[in-house]
Amino acid sequence: MPKTASSPGPIKVIYDTDPGIDDAMALLFLEYAPAIDLVGITTVLGNASIETTTRNALFLKQYFGIQAPVARGADRPLVLELADEPPHHIHGHNGLGDVPIPETLSVTEHELPAHRFIIDMVRKHPGEITIVAVGRMTNLALALREDPGIADLVKEIVIMGGAFGYSGHSGNVTPVAEANIIGDPHAADEMFAASWPIVVVGLDVTQECVMSTAYMQELREKAGKAGQFCWDISRVYEDFYRAATGIDGIFVHDSSAVAYLLDPSLFTTRTGPIKVVTEGIAIGQTIQKPSTRSFPPGVWDGLPDHTICTDVDGKRFLDLYFQTIVDGAAARA
Amino acid sequence: MPKTASSPGPIKVIYDTDPGIDDAMALLFLEYAPAIDLVGITTVLGNASIETTTRNALFLKQYFGIQAPVARGADRPLVLELADEPPHHIHGHNGLGDVPIPETLSVTEHELPAHRFIIDMVRKHPGEITIVAVGRMTNLALALREDPGIADLVKEIVIMGGAFGYSGHSGNVTPVAEANIIGDPHAADEMFAASWPIVVVGLDVTQECVMSTAYMQELREKAGKAGQFCWDISRVYEDFYRAATGIDGIFVHDSSAVAYLLDPSLFTTRTGPIKVVTEGIAIGQTIQKPSTRSFPPGVWDGLPDHTICTDVDGKRFLDLYFQTIVDGAAARA
Repeated sequence: MPKTASSPGPIKVIYDTDPGIDDAMALLFLEYAPAIDLVGITTVLGNASIETTTRNALFLKQYFGIQAPVARGADRPLVLELADEPPHHIHGHNGLGDVPIPETLSVTEHELPAHRFIIDMVRKHPGEITIVAVGRMTNLALALREDPGIADLVKEIVIMGGAFGYSGHSGNVTPVAEANIIGDPHAADEMFAASWPIVVVGLDVTQECVMSTAYMQELREKAGKAGQFCWDISRVYEDFYRAATGIDGIFVHDSSAVAYLLDPSLFTTRTGPIKVVTEGIAIGQTIQKPSTRSFPPGVWDGLPDHTICTDVDGKRFLDLYFQTIVDGAAARA
Repeated sequence: MPKTASSPGPIKVIYDTDPGIDDAMALLFLEYAPAIDLVGITTVLGNASIETTTRNALFLKQYFGIQAPVARGADRPLVLELADEPPHHIHGHNGLGDVPIPETLSVTEHELPAHRFIIDMVRKHPGEITIVAVGRMTNLALALREDPGIADLVKEIVIMGGAFGYSGHSGNVTPVAEANIIGDPHAADEMFAASWPIVVVGLDVTQECVMSTAYMQELREKAGKAGQFCWDISRVYEDFYRAATGIDGIFVHDSSAVAYLLDPSLFTTRTGPIKVVTEGIAIGQTIQKPSTRSFPPGVWDGLPDHTICTDVDGKRFLDLYFQTIVDGAAARA
């Protein structure tokens, strides 16, 4: 089955996520984009514990009437010890900016764990499934370990993760490491070693895009329930970014991966094999050997090429997000 | 003794070097610049063995009538095993592009080893010595181990080494590591941990500057013996760069460090503490924590700030080199 096989109609997407504020905003972007058919949501620990990210995914499914099932994923990294505490100062204590969430929900989890759900869907729709992964890569690595053959059957993987140093953009957990990758560097390294086509949307571009307070206010005014929700959940997030970086607004991490899927022309890219550092002070760093460069023999030799994004047209991206959410909200009003 | 102490007149410079083609061109830049008083040349292994780089330094001293003494330095890295072979394909079998070098020389080495020569000069001229280091940092680390107090007595250290990922510039030995640093990462890490003020001129800027074949031809025509010599030694080097990178000319690595000393306004800089990766796939990578960014607690905490160059005005730099060599040659004709 060729990887380029595609059915007519919308792109079938599994969204692998750890909601998470920007995760929730990207989920709405996927759900509201007519070009996308969201066929599953898989959860992973990261912005909060697996209990919390799964509960949040179910809450979002219920609150916005999303049809896609929610499958619970990994509760710990492949190799690393579980960290002490999720980043409450970024995503709030409940992972969604401390907006009220009902204690009981009327929707329930899928019976399969996330990595088996992924395998199942990819086997059912060979060449048709795109995976948008915006948390740690643990579920993808587990799926690959259990069924390496899926690497040839996935249409494309678009991840939010990593940092490649473009424009002086460094990591956000260490000077070289981004949170999703350093959260499970072994999983990311296994994922990059496989031959499925991966597009990496990292901090190099996500930190080029800021949704200002004014932008979020306008979204709240024009995008109904979705706009109000995005505003409500992002207050804690905005406070964090203002304090940590001085920007007036929020970086648009996870939605940048969705934007790539909807309009790759927004991005400048570079290809080459990617390794992840799994030890020492650079742990969690993503390192690409540009395919145009040659070096003495090294660990990148023989690995498959993947694509990284090195620049983005931020204005067009912000317009695309805005219009998609406004139109989607209007269609559902 | 304050670091900012300075005597009137030219900057006293010790040049720590592994000649090396671009090393030789940078030596002429130092020797011919009126603003610089070259007070010593210390050698280190790297572009060739310590026997060859020391012999080459002595040859250059004799051939150009340089007064500064030559002190022989480290013949191996602090910790790493000695590599198999120096890079003959870059610097030629004799380290100077295979130009003829006399079998016997009339000049001899200084009686002190390089690191003791450095300590001696710094103690004799507290606050006045600038070290321009364009090879591995082994001699500097050895000097620091033997006499840590010199860190407070050196005026400034300007190194050619490292790569910080600006403008997509990666390493030249691995995708993240530059040759001088990966050649002795432990020495570089010890050097960066000390409080002497270090300016790092890395691949981010040295690969922005290309001396084209036409530029080298003009130098040969207008800069007498020095111009002819630069042309002759750089033929092998140019062949290497043409094959490896496709550029029509040569990158100006070591002379970029001299240019910083002569005119810092050519460069854009960033400050922050620097660590060097000493293990794993990122070995040899230089990682700076920008002083404007905050991260969770990490190994950069408590280390002294140093300066890295992130951009350069290549045109002005190339003009400065050209004019300095032409004027210097004319003054000596």
